[in-house]
Amino acid sequence: MDIPAPSDFEARLRRIGVERYHDKHPFHALLHSGGCTLDQVRAWVINRYYYQSRIPMKDAAFMSRVEDPALRRAWRSRIEDHDGTAEREGGISRWLRLARGIGLDPDYVASTRGVLPATRFAVDAYVRYVRDQPLLAAVASSLTELFAPAIHEQRIAGLLKHYDFATPETIAYFSHRLQEAPKDVAFGLGWVLDHAVTREQQDMAAAALTFKTEVLWAQLDALHAAYVTPGLIPPGGWRPGEGLA
Amino acid sequence: MDIPAPSDFEARLRRIGVERYHDKHPFHALLHSGGCTLDQVRAWVINRYYYQSRIPMKDAAFMSRVEDPALRRAWRSRIEDHDGTAEREGGISRWLRLARGIGLDPDYVASTRGVLPATRFAVDAYVRYVRDQPLLAAVASSLTELFAPAIHEQRIAGLLKHYDFATPETIAYFSHRLQEAPKDVAFGLGWVLDHAVTREQQDMAAAALTFKTEVLWAQLDALHAAYVTPGLIPPGGWRPGEGLA
Repeated sequence: MDIPAPSDFEARLRRIGVERYHDKHPFHALLHSGGCTLDQVRAWVINRYYYQSRIPMKDAAFMSRVEDPALRRAWRSRIEDHDGTAEREGGISRWLRLARGIGLDPDYVASTRGVLPATRFAVDAYVRYVRDQPLLAAVASSLTELFAPAIHEQRIAGLLKHYDFATPETIAYFSHRLQEAPKDVAFGLGWVLDHAVTREQQDMAAAALTFKTEVLWAQLDALHAAYVTPGLIPPGGWRPGEGLA
Repeated sequence: MDIPAPSDFEARLRRIGVERYHDKHPFHALLHSGGCTLDQVRAWVINRYYYQSRIPMKDAAFMSRVEDPALRRAWRSRIEDHDGTAEREGGISRWLRLARGIGLDPDYVASTRGVLPATRFAVDAYVRYVRDQPLLAAVASSLTELFAPAIHEQRIAGLLKHYDFATPETIAYFSHRLQEAPKDVAFGLGWVLDHAVTREQQDMAAAALTFKTEVLWAQLDALHAAYVTPGLIPPGGWRPGEGLA
């Protein structure tokens, strides 16, 4: 059986985004169209913080398994983008600015109290995946960034149009990701195309990317169920009125 | 039972260095006094490379478990010091310069072929320790850096005095470590003193530091046995003549 060419393999990866990326989730349609209440936006910001906060840990877990200093060096900027440097604010701090902008206490959000258990399970599964799976699967799982620019552009436009809290300052996280993500994903995609040279490896990479779309989707399912329909907040989950600034 | 004061606890940690740090190992006496043959220096450089190469992986493993962005940021410079940045050469590259300076092929050294199995076991145990043990133990295990400046100064003086290959260029690794290590260890020691506030925690930190001295000592035992006395190189270990530039 012939091995699909890199361009066909890349098309296969991109189809996973078309079919499974969380831009298709009804919660995002609600958010971007101005249909969310302020409390629903708050619930999203609180839960999504948990994902943001674990991304540098995921990237460090990846680097802890990489024997090649050049690959570690290339990957390190992801941690810098999220954690910041002496000169540059990082994404986590920008996310807390968004939290402040919608009336939440940033310390409450950073404490991760009130995060839905299902959010934790999904995100922790991702960190564990990157720690335990073959490097090819770990890199491929990061390729949801291929699909992120479109959703960030929709989000920036939708938030600015529909919500009073949205200003270039409060939503700076997204505009920065538009600048940061393309270099990461270009590197990651190139690496995966270079290293998935057998059909088994291509299947592994596709499975990893599919897994990652599930990690993202599951977070929105939990959010939607808790705060939209049926609105059944599980014990321990954030309740409107808590964690306000 | 009273909890020992921080100053007494620090003194306890420093005693571990006095009693167990690998500056006491006969291989170091041989190396620093000019008693090593060129092949014995080569064996040391090949094996010690494996330790150097795993240090950034160890530090990334640590960061992968840290939930506090500020602590991750403080720790990240260790990885930069070893892997380098766009502007600055890193320690691993400087170590390969030393390898080149003693006639070894840097690619051979970087391949880690010829590293003694006992070196791998000790170093891999350290990386695993930092990945698996409580954060306090992980930080405390880094405190052998408390004892490193003295050995680096001895080494720089001893190598320059006794060996033709030693120039400021070939041994730049050690002079840089003299500049880098103090900030790391000041941070690490402060963190351990702040976080080891019960007797059990102090015992855990002392045990972690003891473990780390064992990791360092075991590498020199293996080196000494293979290349000095009795000079019994195990299967797979580097043999003089291999890996030359």
